[in-house]
Amino acid sequence: MRIVTLAAAQMGAIQRSDSRKQVVARMLDLMDQAKAKGATMIVYPELALTTFFPRWYMEDQAEVDSWFEREMPNADTLPLFERAKSYGMAMNLGYAELTPEGRHFNTAILVDRSGRIVGKYRKTHLPGHSEFDPERAFQHLEKRYFEPGDTGFPVWRMDGGLFGMAICNDRRWPETYRVMGLQGVEMVVLGYNTPSVNSQKADEGPEKRLFHNRLSVQAGAYQNACWVVAVAKSGVEDGFPMIGGSLIVNPDGEIVAEAKTEEDELLVHACDLDDTVFGKSTIFDFKRHRRIEHYSRITDQVGVVLPPE
Amino acid sequence: MRIVTLAAAQMGAIQRSDSRKQVVARMLDLMDQAKAKGATMIVYPELALTTFFPRWYMEDQAEVDSWFEREMPNADTLPLFERAKSYGMAMNLGYAELTPEGRHFNTAILVDRSGRIVGKYRKTHLPGHSEFDPERAFQHLEKRYFEPGDTGFPVWRMDGGLFGMAICNDRRWPETYRVMGLQGVEMVVLGYNTPSVNSQKADEGPEKRLFHNRLSVQAGAYQNACWVVAVAKSGVEDGFPMIGGSLIVNPDGEIVAEAKTEEDELLVHACDLDDTVFGKSTIFDFKRHRRIEHYSRITDQVGVVLPPE
Repeated sequence: MRIVTLAAAQMGAIQRSDSRKQVVARMLDLMDQAKAKGATMIVYPELALTTFFPRWYMEDQAEVDSWFEREMPNADTLPLFERAKSYGMAMNLGYAELTPEGRHFNTAILVDRSGRIVGKYRKTHLPGHSEFDPERAFQHLEKRYFEPGDTGFPVWRMDGGLFGMAICNDRRWPETYRVMGLQGVEMVVLGYNTPSVNSQKADEGPEKRLFHNRLSVQAGAYQNACWVVAVAKSGVEDGFPMIGGSLIVNPDGEIVAEAKTEEDELLVHACDLDDTVFGKSTIFDFKRHRRIEHYSRITDQVGVVLPPE
Repeated sequence: MRIVTLAAAQMGAIQRSDSRKQVVARMLDLMDQAKAKGATMIVYPELALTTFFPRWYMEDQAEVDSWFEREMPNADTLPLFERAKSYGMAMNLGYAELTPEGRHFNTAILVDRSGRIVGKYRKTHLPGHSEFDPERAFQHLEKRYFEPGDTGFPVWRMDGGLFGMAICNDRRWPETYRVMGLQGVEMVVLGYNTPSVNSQKADEGPEKRLFHNRLSVQAGAYQNACWVVAVAKSGVEDGFPMIGGSLIVNPDGEIVAEAKTEEDELLVHACDLDDTVFGKSTIFDFKRHRRIEHYSRITDQVGVVLPPE
């Protein structure tokens, strides 16, 4: 047995006017709760420090940049790092990253139980659009404010296990999990901000959005025989509702814990990384069963190529 | 609207002693029921004409070959082709194929409403093993009796739609659906024979097997915005139980019809191929969102490559 006592730290709404300091205080409270329940790792959502700002159309770059972190940790987030280290708790945290070169990414980091940053991941699959779209019920401007990530999907050795990261829309893409599965990943951690209604289809509401969240995460876990934890920022931010539904899914694809609210809410589950062994050595023993000679379209073409008429 | 009125023709058990003629009579009865319900396409299971013979260890090649078809149609199956044509009904049919060159495949064909065979698919992902395995509760010798398919996953234009095929274990592999999704597939048809208990894990029973069946099929449909129909051969064959659970899943990943028995049972649903348009042009508009530069492991490596120590 190799147990990670995992805390999924769902966060409720963060209003546009909330400061990083206020948010970090909530995150510290979740961390204290996690410690009380014996957690050895805590996972926070995507863009955990601010409201989900890509819903706002901005033209002033200084205003855009105000949502980004220029270093990590920084003065506002240092208390998270210090407390996690003092608790011996690994941590995953999503934030908007502005690099010294002026590049913008939707980023997450992995911090081990000793407080060392062991990995950085930059979101690959940016959803939404880059220009103001008057046909949408609301904007989703991730393609405006971020570049696509340049990290790919690495897997890191940490605290005796194999960990990978993804962010939000990445979870809907089977390539995300498979690239990590091919590196033996035992646990994928990811955060998300998902509007409760499809901005382009009013009759696609929260029930279907929660269903797609579960379906994507469960399939990724099962098909790669790994744990997946998906953690929401949820609730109503300045009038815009987002789903909760944070999940911990085992390597059989089964939900072992699921959030019930759209508030700050902690899920804790003892995840045995050795539960990945059976699937990885039988039905999903890739080396015996995969047939890459028939997969070439997956990496040869980006979009659809229809068969000849 | 481009409606395919789809009949999923689940079949109950076929005993080892049942003749092709007996089985085809059952298949014709299902076809008649499908016609009465207005079906324009019928989908039969994997290896629909015989018992699931890979559970039997055989050393005599003549005995093995007795489970294979040397041509299609042949005398036993011609009535299926003739009746489907007279009904103007497209058809998908799985069978064990022995080629003139002596090659063995687990095969399915696609026949259009005019009775023309438009496509042949040979199973890519063979599960199981090639030698007798005394540690299993029962044998699953697909790797003994078949070669891996050499067709890849083509998509065919047929009767105004874009169709692809898969077989059984293929459905658990996201690559299967993605390769077809990259060709714009609108409907994937597949059959399966799935033992009710994992031969290597006695506590993995029919509930979990049905769950994995649903999960894999629903994820493939959602993530490629296509219809998927998965049709079981089910019931107890010479003492060996197989799950039913045949499904029709829409391009949102939702189950619209599901079998309730382990017998011959028909599901009929009017599937609008235009229901694929929304997903294919928004969240799964591949050309806008896929990042193939980060997927290279999927086609570069067959098995797991662990990160460096």
